[in-house]
Amino acid sequence: MSAYDLPLEELRAFRPPLRLPDGFDDFWQRTLDELAQHPADVRRTPEPAGLTTVDVDDVRFAGWGGDEVAAWLLRPAGATGPLPCVVEFVGYSGGRGLPWERLLWSSAGYAHLVVDTRGQGWAWTTGVTADPGHDGGPAAPGMLTRGLHDPHEHYYRRLYADAVRAVEVARSLPEVDPDAVVAHGISQGGGVALAVAGLVPGLLGVMADVPFLCAFRRAVDLTDAEPYAEVVRWLASHRDDVERAFLTLDHVDAVHLASRASAPALVSVALRDEVCPPSTVFAAYNHYGGDRADEVDKQVRVWWGNGHEGGGGHQQREQLAWLAGRVAAR
Amino acid sequence: MSAYDLPLEELRAFRPPLRLPDGFDDFWQRTLDELAQHPADVRRTPEPAGLTTVDVDDVRFAGWGGDEVAAWLLRPAGATGPLPCVVEFVGYSGGRGLPWERLLWSSAGYAHLVVDTRGQGWAWTTGVTADPGHDGGPAAPGMLTRGLHDPHEHYYRRLYADAVRAVEVARSLPEVDPDAVVAHGISQGGGVALAVAGLVPGLLGVMADVPFLCAFRRAVDLTDAEPYAEVVRWLASHRDDVERAFLTLDHVDAVHLASRASAPALVSVALRDEVCPPSTVFAAYNHYGGDRADEVDKQVRVWWGNGHEGGGGHQQREQLAWLAGRVAAR
Amino acid sequence: MSAYDLPLEELRAFRPPLRLPDGFDDFWQRTLDELAQHPADVRRTPEPAGLTTVDVDDVRFAGWGGDEVAAWLLRPAGATGPLPCVVEFVGYSGGRGLPWERLLWSSAGYAHLVVDTRGQGWAWTTGVTADPGHDGGPAAPGMLTRGLHDPHEHYYRRLYADAVRAVEVARSLPEVDPDAVVAHGISQGGGVALAVAGLVPGLLGVMADVPFLCAFRRAVDLTDAEPYAEVVRWLASHRDDVERAFLTLDHVDAVHLASRASAPALVSVALRDEVCPPSTVFAAYNHYGGDRADEVDKQVRVWWGNGHEGGGGHQQREQLAWLAGRVAAR
Amino acid sequence: MSAYDLPLEELRAFRPPLRLPDGFDDFWQRTLDELAQHPADVRRTPEPAGLTTVDVDDVRFAGWGGDEVAAWLLRPAGATGPLPCVVEFVGYSGGRGLPWERLLWSSAGYAHLVVDTRGQGWAWTTGVTADPGHDGGPAAPGMLTRGLHDPHEHYYRRLYADAVRAVEVARSLPEVDPDAVVAHGISQGGGVALAVAGLVPGLLGVMADVPFLCAFRRAVDLTDAEPYAEVVRWLASHRDDVERAFLTLDHVDAVHLASRASAPALVSVALRDEVCPPSTVFAAYNHYGGDRADEVDKQVRVWWGNGHEGGGGHQQREQLAWLAGRVAAR
Amino acid sequence: MSAYDLPLEELRAFRPPLRLPDGFDDFWQRTLDELAQHPADVRRTPEPAGLTTVDVDDVRFAGWGGDEVAAWLLRPAGATGPLPCVVEFVGYSGGRGLPWERLLWSSAGYAHLVVDTRGQGWAWTTGVTADPGHDGGPAAPGMLTRGLHDPHEHYYRRLYADAVRAVEVARSLPEVDPDAVVAHGISQGGGVALAVAGLVPGLLGVMADVPFLCAFRRAVDLTDAEPYAEVVRWLASHRDDVERAFLTLDHVDAVHLASRASAPALVSVALRDEVCPPSTVFAAYNHYGGDRADEVDKQVRVWWGNGHEGGGGHQQREQLAWLAGRVAAR
Amino acid sequence: MSAYDLPLEELRAFRPPLRLPDGFDDFWQRTLDELAQHPADVRRTPEPAGLTTVDVDDVRFAGWGGDEVAAWLLRPAGATGPLPCVVEFVGYSGGRGLPWERLLWSSAGYAHLVVDTRGQGWAWTTGVTADPGHDGGPAAPGMLTRGLHDPHEHYYRRLYADAVRAVEVARSLPEVDPDAVVAHGISQGGGVALAVAGLVPGLLGVMADVPFLCAFRRAVDLTDAEPYAEVVRWLASHRDDVERAFLTLDHVDAVHLASRASAPALVSVALRDEVCPPSTVFAAYNHYGGDRADEVDKQVRVWWGNGHEGGGGHQQREQLAWLAGRVAAR
Repeated sequence: MSAYDLPLEELRAFRPPLRLPDGFDDFWQRTLDELAQHPADVRRTPEPAGLTTVDVDDVRFAGWGGDEVAAWLLRPAGATGPLPCVVEFVGYSGGRGLPWERLLWSSAGYAHLVVDTRGQGWAWTTGVTADPGHDGGPAAPGMLTRGLHDPHEHYYRRLYADAVRAVEVARSLPEVDPDAVVAHGISQGGGVALAVAGLVPGLLGVMADVPFLCAFRRAVDLTDAEPYAEVVRWLASHRDDVERAFLTLDHVDAVHLASRASAPALVSVALRDEVCPPSTVFAAYNHYGGDRADEVDKQVRVWWGNGHEGGGGHQQREQLAWLAGRVAAR
Repeated sequence: MSAYDLPLEELRAFRPPLRLPDGFDDFWQRTLDELAQHPADVRRTPEPAGLTTVDVDDVRFAGWGGDEVAAWLLRPAGATGPLPCVVEFVGYSGGRGLPWERLLWSSAGYAHLVVDTRGQGWAWTTGVTADPGHDGGPAAPGMLTRGLHDPHEHYYRRLYADAVRAVEVARSLPEVDPDAVVAHGISQGGGVALAVAGLVPGLLGVMADVPFLCAFRRAVDLTDAEPYAEVVRWLASHRDDVERAFLTLDHVDAVHLASRASAPALVSVALRDEVCPPSTVFAAYNHYGGDRADEVDKQVRVWWGNGHEGGGGHQQREQLAWLAGRVAAR
Repeated sequence: MSAYDLPLEELRAFRPPLRLPDGFDDFWQRTLDELAQHPADVRRTPEPAGLTTVDVDDVRFAGWGGDEVAAWLLRPAGATGPLPCVVEFVGYSGGRGLPWERLLWSSAGYAHLVVDTRGQGWAWTTGVTADPGHDGGPAAPGMLTRGLHDPHEHYYRRLYADAVRAVEVARSLPEVDPDAVVAHGISQGGGVALAVAGLVPGLLGVMADVPFLCAFRRAVDLTDAEPYAEVVRWLASHRDDVERAFLTLDHVDAVHLASRASAPALVSVALRDEVCPPSTVFAAYNHYGGDRADEVDKQVRVWWGNGHEGGGGHQQREQLAWLAGRVAAR
Repeated sequence: MSAYDLPLEELRAFRPPLRLPDGFDDFWQRTLDELAQHPADVRRTPEPAGLTTVDVDDVRFAGWGGDEVAAWLLRPAGATGPLPCVVEFVGYSGGRGLPWERLLWSSAGYAHLVVDTRGQGWAWTTGVTADPGHDGGPAAPGMLTRGLHDPHEHYYRRLYADAVRAVEVARSLPEVDPDAVVAHGISQGGGVALAVAGLVPGLLGVMADVPFLCAFRRAVDLTDAEPYAEVVRWLASHRDDVERAFLTLDHVDAVHLASRASAPALVSVALRDEVCPPSTVFAAYNHYGGDRADEVDKQVRVWWGNGHEGGGGHQQREQLAWLAGRVAAR
Repeated sequence: MSAYDLPLEELRAFRPPLRLPDGFDDFWQRTLDELAQHPADVRRTPEPAGLTTVDVDDVRFAGWGGDEVAAWLLRPAGATGPLPCVVEFVGYSGGRGLPWERLLWSSAGYAHLVVDTRGQGWAWTTGVTADPGHDGGPAAPGMLTRGLHDPHEHYYRRLYADAVRAVEVARSLPEVDPDAVVAHGISQGGGVALAVAGLVPGLLGVMADVPFLCAFRRAVDLTDAEPYAEVVRWLASHRDDVERAFLTLDHVDAVHLASRASAPALVSVALRDEVCPPSTVFAAYNHYGGDRADEVDKQVRVWWGNGHEGGGGHQQREQLAWLAGRVAAR
Repeated sequence: MSAYDLPLEELRAFRPPLRLPDGFDDFWQRTLDELAQHPADVRRTPEPAGLTTVDVDDVRFAGWGGDEVAAWLLRPAGATGPLPCVVEFVGYSGGRGLPWERLLWSSAGYAHLVVDTRGQGWAWTTGVTADPGHDGGPAAPGMLTRGLHDPHEHYYRRLYADAVRAVEVARSLPEVDPDAVVAHGISQGGGVALAVAGLVPGLLGVMADVPFLCAFRRAVDLTDAEPYAEVVRWLASHRDDVERAFLTLDHVDAVHLASRASAPALVSVALRDEVCPPSTVFAAYNHYGGDRADEVDKQVRVWWGNGHEGGGGHQQREQLAWLAGRVAAR
């Protein structure tokens, strides 16, 4: 994939007009209110993972609609805390996987909550969490078109609510310092982290890598790649539903939620990312903080030669340093 | 796609051992019993389709679990019947579409019930029927892995039940001669038609073209093409579930249900079909009729140079003649 | 295919300068004169198609150079007319096919003449009409480079003449109202319909979907897809012939012929059409009517999420309504 | 392309039954008789090619049906002969090209007649020779399906006749020793050379590299690659014509004509050739010489790691030596 | 990739004849002798990796020819040992990467030496180790054809020697129990691990996943995938060198070295692995142990639905258990 | 590949700012000085090529670092000269090949020195020249990343030095007129020819076709094609090295060296060249001659419909005429 999007200097300045639907903030407030009606109901079970430096628990809690959501809690063996905590949301098609697949944050001294993704987990990492909230209506394979006709029914409303709940759960854990919780994720996980930043106050930080779920209207015109292509595939046969579908997507667009965020943020973007076009990431980054976008404590790390793999271990190096700095600065 | 499967002479003789799971017939009897607990609840509304030679109704009825299933009823304008009726099931990813997209059978003097496919209809033809019976558990995009852990939860159990119900609905219509109902479909629709033939007695005939859903264990080893590939994709990350998954698929394998069928059948197969490998179709065809497979009135039409598009209009020519013969012979 | 062409607002205004070759109108007048020297010599034979609501005739007539051209005539069973008539030209690589493959217009009460395409019919639908007018000169596989060195020898001159003749034939049929003939087609058929609109006065209407054969000079720079790619492939080895080739193509460019048209028109375009780039379709649409382009009764239907499949059954819905309106308004 | 065909030891023994159609030898005798009715009518013009060591003439002669066929004659500058002569037929889609594109044989001291291919020359090398003998009947793009319904109308009947005539023309040139003419070609040119060997007595030799046009019935089942795929593409829509098509192809199958050959032969084959599968080449090689196949002076050079590019310059090294030996041995 | 190789039951029995070149064991003994002439010269530097549960050192030592080879040593923070140690070799194109990219084995209580790969590290994980031993002779891009003309010059001779040295280095570390060293790797790393098992006595075990470098002669005929395809690409132009090349590869074939191994082994294989065909892995597995192949303590884990990604985290689960068992059993 | 780069009128004017690194001219002067320390040490051996009109010698000489470089010398049989001489550099992945593969220039009366490419020759034409100057450091497969960290170590520094030496060698040959030497090549060979033009005074001319190695910073953003993609692939994992890498490439950018050239030049460019984007070629062409770019005797031949195959035999026709003119004009 050659450098197909805007040149870097234009990307840095790219802040397209928001298309906030009417009642956007009310929609999300009602969503949080509805979520609050289901108590978190946290259950945890030690998981015999065969590790010696890290302890693992299988954590279950009630997400959107009271549906059970699974997570792994990893932390340094024997740690009593309270520790700062990284709450991680995973990329599209993946689930929480197996506990030894994500050892970075616990090995670096943090509590780490890896949150499963409802209905996903069919590739690279497995998942166990169902999406019973889906009404079963016709949808193109994948998640983006589940409930595309109505923001209240859309899949990402449910997933963002699960993510908000996951932060609440993390804050409730005895090992975790509730004032030191960081939302983190790559791709879909990065989009969810941005959304969480717009919905949950008081986060220590947000680390969003090559985030998906940003600037849908632009993304579908820039790339044919999955998963944005699901939207186009659906609308290719449901030809009468184009505007209604984008109105729904406007409600769950991470650019819009990022404009409500205020926590410190470290974002990464890759200039040859054909899955999440760089200008959609910059749209989110540049709007991050909304009216105070120029004052918010935020940074973006640009990876010149990468596609959607982004910064990989090099971005982790940045994050280890950035996060250590945030913790130290408290 | 070159001729990658067995040579034609071997295909004609190909009858691999059945792998009927324990309690196979009971499983389906219980399924039919459970279906019977929901009355069909047929509703029909004239559809203003802008046609003059064909009348169209939008038909809705209760399928598996009482879920609403949509269909189109087409028949020659003004016909009072009773007419022989073609009940058609549609191919993977499609739905019942728009009424003027399938004018063949009504133009040939038949009643024609085009049955929607629950949860599908995202490509080439649209659909409106939901699959609320899905428990929302993690599944690879597509339908084959919905409920792969348990035959009772598997998607095709629900779909076959809808199809059985559709035949019942057709038989109940005043325009239709209940003794002259034919099950028909292409690809997924062909697999469903074979399944219906194994579940419903007294059909006038079955016309199954390049059927999908046959000989899963073999198909996934012969082709990488969608949709069989959904099974492999799922099992690639759910590595512990291989045997359980195939045990489920054995329950919905159209080869197994075809071995319980007895109605006259016209099957078609394409020798370069990379989606539904010819040997999987011949497995169904050769087992069709079970113990009496050699006595059943059945034919197979082989298309030498075709892939999954099969015989197209040429196969329709065969079907018009074959079906006219069946009607005349009554 | 992402949205690779101009944005929609620019497409709507896109009217590039015409490049009418010297003597363009004379060229076509001489072509029509030459066509007139061969009488139409219509022969028709009832075709036993196995249908009850539609009657079918195999129609043969003399096209360009007196070459025999085949067509199907379909109309409501027993209709005596005079009926309005849809004359349909088919897409690239296809032929008139089998009569039951196109039942829409006769089922909607129209006479329907499906015209074969000389020398084509090698894919999806078969054909039986030869192109003996071809001098056999070296040509890249396909039709676009047949006679590329001279507009008099170019394939599309012959094909457009056949199409003009087909309209004459339709008007001569007893079932057809000669004042109510509509030219229609998809892709190549749409380009031919536009050309016919520029060559034949008095049409009731033109329905051209995702038309091919428009704005060759632009198309070959915008897309690599077949069949426009035939031109590039040929010129890649015939490197000295570039200008001469485009001069020939200017003679058969449907944009140029559309600028001579005046009949009411319903055009469709798909924004992700990689075969017929949307700006080439808008070039034709915006020039349609020539000096009176802003006064002509025309509409364009834009399909947002579609490639070259265009509007499919949804576009047919538009056409059924539009055409009923045209007929009613007479 | 991995080694997808038979193992080498089986290839060496691979001699599938011939499927000579009834009247095969008569068919070709009548073809030669008909060819003889048109005098060769050779015209030659010096071509100013800008070379100093090689002289070039543009040669034109009457081929099948009296159609003009073009060729280049190259020979060492100032040579008066009589020289042994390589008559070369070119690969599919190519033409005789430009004279300086094929300098090998004249630089090695031979006369070299490069024969154009009727109707081809659209890629890599240009051509100027038309195929007016084509009746214009519907055909898939390419040459294989021109006249597929009747061996008398098939394209390769005309091309083989041109090739026979080219040998006659070479023998008539004053610079050429008529007893020292070699038929040569790569791919299509190799198939034509084998055919010529079966039709023309008294050749000094045949050099056929990775020959096309061999064992059609097998080739279309082994490879999807062009140009064999043209046959399948055509028969995919002309579904009723399969047997008739193969009967036609049996008439022009180079395996069958090779079984009538007796001249010394040097054949090459590549084990990863996806265009001309190695077993189709071995079928021709092993049948070469027919009843006396085991006595004929022939060799095959096997290239282990090559696809259809074959032996390239290395095969030329073999040919330079082999041909020098044949000349010396006279 | 469908299941293109032998059926599983045949794979389990697949033990093709070894093609040990003359002097095979001498060749490797001389290689080890030559290696021994360069002292290991181990240097280690603490690496500030930002982790708290794991300590990291940057280790450098002299490999083949005295060339500097880099590695990471990871172990539980503060561990004094002696610990069992996993020596890991990495997959093709990768290098040792960044230390926090491989935390599994140290988190499970082992010392873990991640060894860089000379001249590699251009993808997914970076590397810093040069291959100055390369004579710079023409080679296809990649490593397989470096020195293909002579086993003494071949790249994998150097790499295997580095690997043997890495085991020696591990055994010399104060934290490591020299009797409890395990060779491990995936793909290329798995092939190297098998080779090490054939060259180094006294290992506690070998864990080789979807190993590359096995049964070259078979692999290049079964798959077109990289990196085996490098061999074919090279030989496609170096047509005279086929036998010499394979004679070289026979010297470094991991099947041959595995036949000299005796340590307990856990191998994994994926049935849809298009990079390392399953039969090449089974060839190594079934020959592992040589004359005592049926007595050696070895297991193979078969992954049914996977390609070259193999068992992933599921295989790690197997390895954690297997290795814990080996350690406990001492 | 559609016309993806700038429109032709913009290409003709495209002269982006040079990015000459500090000390650029010194860098190359020192390189030439260092080259001069190794005497050319020319050895020649008659090669028995089997040709009669052309004589061939295998020539060996000392290139950069004194490394042996191979070449073929071809000239009209028996020529004593002094002849004008074409020194040809070959395209990426190729080597000097076999002598009979390049007969054009000797057949046209020139001496012709075909120079091998160090370390290449793995495809289409073989090579025998090593690149021992490579330090073996990690590099992506291919040549572009060898020594990317330092211009002194970069592969193309060595190759350009070989090329300068080849011109010196040609001038020293008794058959060659030292004042009539032309540098020539296609693709990589064209880039080398441009570089030679910037490094060697007094050339009779330069013929550079579709040159590679021009405007690296732009090329990697315009195309994903090999070999430019090697740079991106490397930097995708070596994420910290982007600027250093481009600083190295600036030293060997043929645009920069072309700005130091003054010999008459004939350049060709293809508008659909996806390997060497047309704007990168025009950047070199428009800067050719540097401050005197508008006065230098230069021409560019634009091929409209071609990809990287460029003008082929048609461009040779241009070159034969252009070069004859240059020789005549002396």
